[in-house]
Amino acid sequence: MSPSTHRPVSLTGIKPTGLPHLGNYLGMIRPALALTEEYRVLYFIADYHALTTVHDGPELSTLTHELAATWLALGLEPGPEATIYRQSDVPEIFEICWILSCFAPKGLLNRAHAYKAMVDANAEAGTTDDDGVSAGLFSYPVLMAADILAYDADVVPVGLDQKQHLEITRDIADVFNQNYGEVLRLPEPRIDENVETIPGLDGRKMSKSYGNTIPIFLEPKKLRKAVRRIVTDSRPPEEPKDPEGDTLFALYSLIASPDATTELATAYREGGIGYGQVKDDLADRLIDLFGEPRRRFEELTADRAAVNAILDEGAAHARSIAGPVLSRLREAVGTAR
Amino acid sequence: MSPSTHRPVSLTGIKPTGLPHLGNYLGMIRPALALTEEYRVLYFIADYHALTTVHDGPELSTLTHELAATWLALGLEPGPEATIYRQSDVPEIFEICWILSCFAPKGLLNRAHAYKAMVDANAEAGTTDDDGVSAGLFSYPVLMAADILAYDADVVPVGLDQKQHLEITRDIADVFNQNYGEVLRLPEPRIDENVETIPGLDGRKMSKSYGNTIPIFLEPKKLRKAVRRIVTDSRPPEEPKDPEGDTLFALYSLIASPDATTELATAYREGGIGYGQVKDDLADRLIDLFGEPRRRFEELTADRAAVNAILDEGAAHARSIAGPVLSRLREAVGTAR
Repeated sequence: MSPSTHRPVSLTGIKPTGLPHLGNYLGMIRPALALTEEYRVLYFIADYHALTTVHDGPELSTLTHELAATWLALGLEPGPEATIYRQSDVPEIFEICWILSCFAPKGLLNRAHAYKAMVDANAEAGTTDDDGVSAGLFSYPVLMAADILAYDADVVPVGLDQKQHLEITRDIADVFNQNYGEVLRLPEPRIDENVETIPGLDGRKMSKSYGNTIPIFLEPKKLRKAVRRIVTDSRPPEEPKDPEGDTLFALYSLIASPDATTELATAYREGGIGYGQVKDDLADRLIDLFGEPRRRFEELTADRAAVNAILDEGAAHARSIAGPVLSRLREAVGTAR
Repeated sequence: MSPSTHRPVSLTGIKPTGLPHLGNYLGMIRPALALTEEYRVLYFIADYHALTTVHDGPELSTLTHELAATWLALGLEPGPEATIYRQSDVPEIFEICWILSCFAPKGLLNRAHAYKAMVDANAEAGTTDDDGVSAGLFSYPVLMAADILAYDADVVPVGLDQKQHLEITRDIADVFNQNYGEVLRLPEPRIDENVETIPGLDGRKMSKSYGNTIPIFLEPKKLRKAVRRIVTDSRPPEEPKDPEGDTLFALYSLIASPDATTELATAYREGGIGYGQVKDDLADRLIDLFGEPRRRFEELTADRAAVNAILDEGAAHARSIAGPVLSRLREAVGTAR
């Protein structure tokens, strides 16, 4: 047994939503990839969660493939420490989902944030509570519980807005265990205090819905152009500037080394450096950082077979964990032979 | 290709709820077994539906085994025309269930009879709407839709109280097909007009919840004793009686030949026959009818391996149909490779 098998298991689910931007990378992908230093990490592409909203087959397929290519291009090295697989390649999940649903109080789902947000939006629009809400949208916290509990995960990294998912997961597991004994392992949340909100071009949170993103796989010229659109004030180069609260500085500090960041902070405060110059420096760094990943990404998006081979291996590994967990569940509920 | 493959496919789901009584046999089992004359019939044991209420592993396992033994003992001959399998042995169902849930409007589930009955009961008891309602209970119409649509079933025999299930199934399939084209086959209901309510000992519908049943696998002495408990009026043998509305006569007519029934009707009207005599005649017929099935049932409940072998074969056949249907769905939604 390799020493790595003693490492705790961490699980990260990723919904395929389109090409990655700098906010995705800094806020989610980079910290998630760093987890392999402490954990055996399972990364899964939540394509069947995406199905609650993406009702176009070729689109879902492309999004899924691009997501796998993105993570592989950005440094995910598949192996015993880092498994990447598609949710849809682990059929055990869906049977586990049904079993758990028989122990998930409906009241838990009524209170789920995503569902409540839809009900609120419907109220505002003057329609009925459940207008446009599918059974899948309503019950996706149970699928999420299955995604997690199927792997005996020790920890699940969650942002503050996802804390509830893990609480619901633990609640369902708890109901099940109270009935059948200690069958399911209750995972702990791993809340990364250091992950801050990544500002977009206009200073608000970088998000596709705000149209303020910097896509990381842009070709160099376009990437530089995007960086130039970061909103700054109109202070000329010679005037002193406050690095605090400055979007450009914030993004720079997330990319550059601590030393370079300290240097820039000093230059801001003393005056004599212009925003244009900082933008060029940041653009250089981004072009450098994402040059090789962009090349890899293009290679991988053109080579479905290569990506599929990796996903197949990932699925085999994932199923080797989920299979025995499902067997335990079947044994407990009385559907084993 | 054998000619039988041109027969339409009919699907019958059976929830394991305990040892069969005469009402189950006459109202459900006998008509369902007769379907093989017209259809290729799939009979499945809905053990994962039972899981919404049966939270005891050994109990669910025993109920499932006894249900298979019951149907086999009562004449189900497994083969290409009649397949019996456990829902839990067809993992495809649960993935299909999730896929369908992404297209099932939650509003459909809000209006499902079984859920509404629970909400009403909660209102009466003064608790909250969803008290004691699990996610599984709420979303079981989607699992039922998967159970049906997974087999390209042509017809589903339904009682009047189950008509809604099939309507929901068709609605979900319709939403799916409108989005992706004609992927799912919409099944037709087969409403058996002749199936009447089977009266119990006290004249109300025979039902475990009323405690008015005649279990069919009782040993002869006990079976006769149960029949003697059928409620009749106090008219002595010599007095004329009305066969209409008489529980004993109704049960007799469902067991005896048309000729014997006509004869008894005449004897009722003319007087000269006592209820005790009729009960003895009915008991004789039931003992005769269920003697061999009871022996088979006892044999099969003692032989798990024999029943499992039949269920294994059934599952293999069921999966050979459900697998390609799931592939069609995956192809459509974009989770195929």
